[in-house]
Amino acid sequence: MSKFLSSRHAGLNEYVPGEQPSDMQYIKLNTNESPYPPSPGVLSALSEAEISKLNLYPNPDGTRLIEKLAETYGVGPENVVIGNGSDELLAFAFMAFCDPVGVCFPNITYGFYPVYAQLFGVSYRQIPLAEDFTVRVEDYIGVNRHVILANPNAPTGIALTLADIRRIAESNPDNVVLIDEAYVDFGAESAIALVREHENLLVMHTYSKARSMAGARLAYAIAQKTLIEDLNKMKYSFNPYNVNRLTQLAGHAALCDAEYYTANCRNIIRTREYTEQKLQDLGFELTDSKANFVFAKKPGFSGRELYLALKQKGILVRQFNDGRISDYLRISIGTREQMDACITAIESIVGDDGNRPEY
Amino acid sequence: MSKFLSSRHAGLNEYVPGEQPSDMQYIKLNTNESPYPPSPGVLSALSEAEISKLNLYPNPDGTRLIEKLAETYGVGPENVVIGNGSDELLAFAFMAFCDPVGVCFPNITYGFYPVYAQLFGVSYRQIPLAEDFTVRVEDYIGVNRHVILANPNAPTGIALTLADIRRIAESNPDNVVLIDEAYVDFGAESAIALVREHENLLVMHTYSKARSMAGARLAYAIAQKTLIEDLNKMKYSFNPYNVNRLTQLAGHAALCDAEYYTANCRNIIRTREYTEQKLQDLGFELTDSKANFVFAKKPGFSGRELYLALKQKGILVRQFNDGRISDYLRISIGTREQMDACITAIESIVGDDGNRPEY
Repeated sequence: MSKFLSSRHAGLNEYVPGEQPSDMQYIKLNTNESPYPPSPGVLSALSEAEISKLNLYPNPDGTRLIEKLAETYGVGPENVVIGNGSDELLAFAFMAFCDPVGVCFPNITYGFYPVYAQLFGVSYRQIPLAEDFTVRVEDYIGVNRHVILANPNAPTGIALTLADIRRIAESNPDNVVLIDEAYVDFGAESAIALVREHENLLVMHTYSKARSMAGARLAYAIAQKTLIEDLNKMKYSFNPYNVNRLTQLAGHAALCDAEYYTANCRNIIRTREYTEQKLQDLGFELTDSKANFVFAKKPGFSGRELYLALKQKGILVRQFNDGRISDYLRISIGTREQMDACITAIESIVGDDGNRPEY
Repeated sequence: MSKFLSSRHAGLNEYVPGEQPSDMQYIKLNTNESPYPPSPGVLSALSEAEISKLNLYPNPDGTRLIEKLAETYGVGPENVVIGNGSDELLAFAFMAFCDPVGVCFPNITYGFYPVYAQLFGVSYRQIPLAEDFTVRVEDYIGVNRHVILANPNAPTGIALTLADIRRIAESNPDNVVLIDEAYVDFGAESAIALVREHENLLVMHTYSKARSMAGARLAYAIAQKTLIEDLNKMKYSFNPYNVNRLTQLAGHAALCDAEYYTANCRNIIRTREYTEQKLQDLGFELTDSKANFVFAKKPGFSGRELYLALKQKGILVRQFNDGRISDYLRISIGTREQMDACITAIESIVGDDGNRPEY
């Protein structure tokens, strides 16, 4: 920290992304990436001819991509804004709406929400999840603050129903209800269907998970026109050229290959169910995940212990040093082969009858 | 604007990027892009194999790119931070340093600085340029605010000397002096040489101009370690994966092709001098530009009139509706052929003897 840093940031604790150690080749099941490459259309869209045009600025409005997104979701282009990953769009939402009203979100959810609140000096309330890690919908009824809910939630994977989201949106007409649907394509229902009815609903999607483009950084939000205008005001006051040329092209091409991605999602869901069964057989307790990860603990083992033992065996998973969930592992769903390797490694740690071996 | 937008943003006027009209094919001399494509190394770095890995997140630390930048500039990796274009890094600097001290910059400079100040609620003072559009160095001595200077300045192209910058940095030891060197490679001296001596100096570079990568979005800042730590605190609290995989690769490859870019800069400087001579012959008045654009006016013609007439002839230049400079055109330096086309068009508007033709 320099002596120049604004004192308002003195207590700011930045977000810590999933580790990317380079000491050996790991099976990476710690950042919920897709195990599948982008579709063939994405590969051909990023042609040498397009790379040769990198001397030119991107279209700041992202017109072609936004029109395709609008068509895909049955909304108008005026209902869509794009960002350099969900993180940027979330930051724009905090900047646009949250001061001075404040915001609330679950106490166990995407760890970045409180970071944004701190960064922008926004008051925030973290509402405890129920014992079983579900969101208690009644806690968000008429809550008199903006609401952010990841649906499915992370790292639990548990989803709300659209009826729940409708109730929350209806009961908070003067506040924005932001539904972060990063994982929605793996088994939950999208609230985009509700945007037409609710002027306060803001639905955010990323290309980082189901669309295999974490490395390209692309996300979009869908809402009624005036909310999108507000987010664009932030974008054009922060970084008008926020989405680069190649990412805009890749994002468009991916939408044209919808079947490829739908098939990948089906595979990931199947592999998740397979993994869940294997972990249950080994005595793990799991949440009902609708995401591309499982959230699991093994009674008798600490999360840290399992995480470290797996890392030693070349398998990276995510473990959070947060009291209520510190014994859980969040394991991204990779290919069937990767999950078999992960399960074999877990067996060798916990014993293949699910009991701690002598080691 | 929705009813949810924070009232603090009510008066915010976002930045307006250079237009990208699609009604016809223009010669685009309005956003200071390089007329040259990225180097061969960039083209081969963005291979199909790399595009296939877009399902994986980028390295948030940008380690390989940052190490190469550090090597290139003779600093340590701890002295470098990367961003999604200069705009993002500028925003991080405003977020990190400017509240509550406030900031000052010339009244004629990059139009985004006051937007950031408004966005983040920072007090700002716009210090008038001298009559000849030079920065009056004495205005920035002991100014008791953070200082931002584009060097060369935009849209005037006029450069400060390193001696001037040293004086400003020395006289403001408790404030950050940010030198925005977007255009430095076209004839000015970089203040990176001064970073070691001045803990308050922050030098920002972009890949958008001399390195032909406006479409990839990449910039970096160089400063002493603690200033870089502060900017990284912003980055990791805003968007840790701010620079995507392909842009990191392209940025690294470009540094390995330094000669290619140096030769391009030499060409652009030569073409600038050629263009200046032609415009002088046509009776234009020009600033002493050290950038990849000229800043010129033709007595007897309004800037708007020239801008519109050129646009009609398929040539886009930039004109600013700001009193003191509204009669000037900022014309980016393209290829020799593009500039010949521009000059021919100007001749047909102003008359080839420099006098208004009957039209």
